[in-house]
Amino acid sequence: MPSKVRIALDAMGGDVGAPVVIPGAAISLGRHRETEFLLFGDRAKIEPELDRHPELKAASRIIHTDVAVSMEDKPSQALRRGRKTSSMWLAIDAVKKGEADVAISAGNTGALMAMSRFNLRTLPGIDRPALAAIWPTMRGDSVVLDLGASIGGDARHLVALAVMGASMASVLFDKPRPTVGLLNIGVEEIKGHEEIREAGEMLRAMNLPQLDYIGFVEGDGIGKGLADVIVTEGYSGNIALKATEGTARQISEYLRNEMRRSWMNKLGYLFARSAFRTLRDKMDPNKSNGGVFLGLKGVVVKSHGGTNAEGFAYAIDVGYEMVKFDLLNKINQMLNRDGGALVSVPTEPEDVS
Amino acid sequence: MPSKVRIALDAMGGDVGAPVVIPGAAISLGRHRETEFLLFGDRAKIEPELDRHPELKAASRIIHTDVAVSMEDKPSQALRRGRKTSSMWLAIDAVKKGEADVAISAGNTGALMAMSRFNLRTLPGIDRPALAAIWPTMRGDSVVLDLGASIGGDARHLVALAVMGASMASVLFDKPRPTVGLLNIGVEEIKGHEEIREAGEMLRAMNLPQLDYIGFVEGDGIGKGLADVIVTEGYSGNIALKATEGTARQISEYLRNEMRRSWMNKLGYLFARSAFRTLRDKMDPNKSNGGVFLGLKGVVVKSHGGTNAEGFAYAIDVGYEMVKFDLLNKINQMLNRDGGALVSVPTEPEDVS
Repeated sequence: MPSKVRIALDAMGGDVGAPVVIPGAAISLGRHRETEFLLFGDRAKIEPELDRHPELKAASRIIHTDVAVSMEDKPSQALRRGRKTSSMWLAIDAVKKGEADVAISAGNTGALMAMSRFNLRTLPGIDRPALAAIWPTMRGDSVVLDLGASIGGDARHLVALAVMGASMASVLFDKPRPTVGLLNIGVEEIKGHEEIREAGEMLRAMNLPQLDYIGFVEGDGIGKGLADVIVTEGYSGNIALKATEGTARQISEYLRNEMRRSWMNKLGYLFARSAFRTLRDKMDPNKSNGGVFLGLKGVVVKSHGGTNAEGFAYAIDVGYEMVKFDLLNKINQMLNRDGGALVSVPTEPEDVS
Repeated sequence: MPSKVRIALDAMGGDVGAPVVIPGAAISLGRHRETEFLLFGDRAKIEPELDRHPELKAASRIIHTDVAVSMEDKPSQALRRGRKTSSMWLAIDAVKKGEADVAISAGNTGALMAMSRFNLRTLPGIDRPALAAIWPTMRGDSVVLDLGASIGGDARHLVALAVMGASMASVLFDKPRPTVGLLNIGVEEIKGHEEIREAGEMLRAMNLPQLDYIGFVEGDGIGKGLADVIVTEGYSGNIALKATEGTARQISEYLRNEMRRSWMNKLGYLFARSAFRTLRDKMDPNKSNGGVFLGLKGVVVKSHGGTNAEGFAYAIDVGYEMVKFDLLNKINQMLNRDGGALVSVPTEPEDVS
């Protein structure tokens, strides 16, 4: 691990680009002095922002490019138009070349995924990368994956997700053997897809030293914090994430409307405003910003496209911690422990032939 | 439609049984005088409850049975043990025999599903029934289905869900052509399973007079109320429902804890308590209690097992409305309009052979 954490930023990514990315980097630098930044993008847009943050400027280098992936580009378009030239590609490429330890972008998720996978490639034993995020629960944070990097998948894919998620949780939460649950539905006998049941049996049979498999967890178990790591395939993970974000927004709106409805309520709001501030903080999606692509030969962090500077700084913090605590090596070790955690898994019929 | 709505209740269903079911029926009867009840279960447990509600007693008949399906029974166990004898089976059977218009149970979901399907059978053109619920959104209520009655399914199954959900929404919301969205994830190109894309194309091509297909809706679109009907297969639907319930509970708990933290907050709570009461009402799962099994030759309503009397009364209300506004005939008409909405769907390759 290098003494400094070297962070490659796609300075053009997200709904706003440099006016969010640069102030975000300045906030994160304030928290982690031992950081260096490579800023990829349009110099004319980056420099004015950087001039407002002299300390960041001293810790940064700009690598100019005119090309930026737009939020509307399809992954294939982004690859065609932006390969080798776009700020997103170049930030990922800096990780590949060993010039940076992590790449962070608030750009288009599909494009970031496609470029990361195309350029960095997946780790041995991993077919498809995953998007993992830190999820605030009643008992602290959990890691939830996959949030939409890939859809569906067999039992072996779910086991790979469990191993990668456990690596991330052990790094983040400093737990040698985090608990892992498989997301499932609660109706007996028709319980879950075949592959979820099979993954559960595999995890139990493997009894891995690096994770404590606790069984199935229902949708409401995520928020209860029933496990440090919640594993599901990308379609349902994405639906769960978005449904949760939507519910939080819906309740905030109800509350805001109610608080305006009478002078008694308004007065109550004034008295209890510290409580509301804490609640807003807890529910602030910016504070859990920073999805991590797992399973690649390099660390890539995805920030929400619509985040503000504070939110982008959290995404950088996530990337910083992943590097500082050596996530990549940890995942590799876990995947290859005892001759390969996943290789030792009973193979599927189609793999045998 | 009969002048009275005849409701068969599984008086033994749910975590509590008769002490919730009977007072719940009394509440609902207060709202809909033109109701008659058939109460299935242990007479010794039903009668003492009924004695406290003379008006309900006058509108009810007890059909005694010793056998009750337990909340822990697997569907196959429930069928083995409780077929033809249990309070749950007899309530469903009353619908089959035409003695009741709707059966309502707070019992074990899997067992209720299995018995309903086994006894009532599915409508022509419907392979697998669905569980639909009323979902409170920022723009009023939506119908969401399937919430876990069956897992997975091809495009034709999703189209059937759309048609049945639209029937239910048109009945509930009095809209001749409710909007329908397919739940999907937002990443371009890897967007959704093949069957969701295909269902979208089918719905667009069919351009049915009874529903207005508006395209894909992401997880946060449910709470925004983007469509009157949200369609998804049962696994992701169940995950979305439970994740949403979990989030609501998590936020309530945050808020409750914060409000107790200082005397200023407590004072604020007192002033704004009408606002909190409204919020609690809006978030109360009892008030959106009552999932409807769609696609069967009869109407069956599932109440939450852990609901209170007020919540069970809402489930009865839902059943009442389904009968009063003739849901079953509406679904049948929609399924068979123009020679069969679903039959006219381009068949899958495997159906051709």
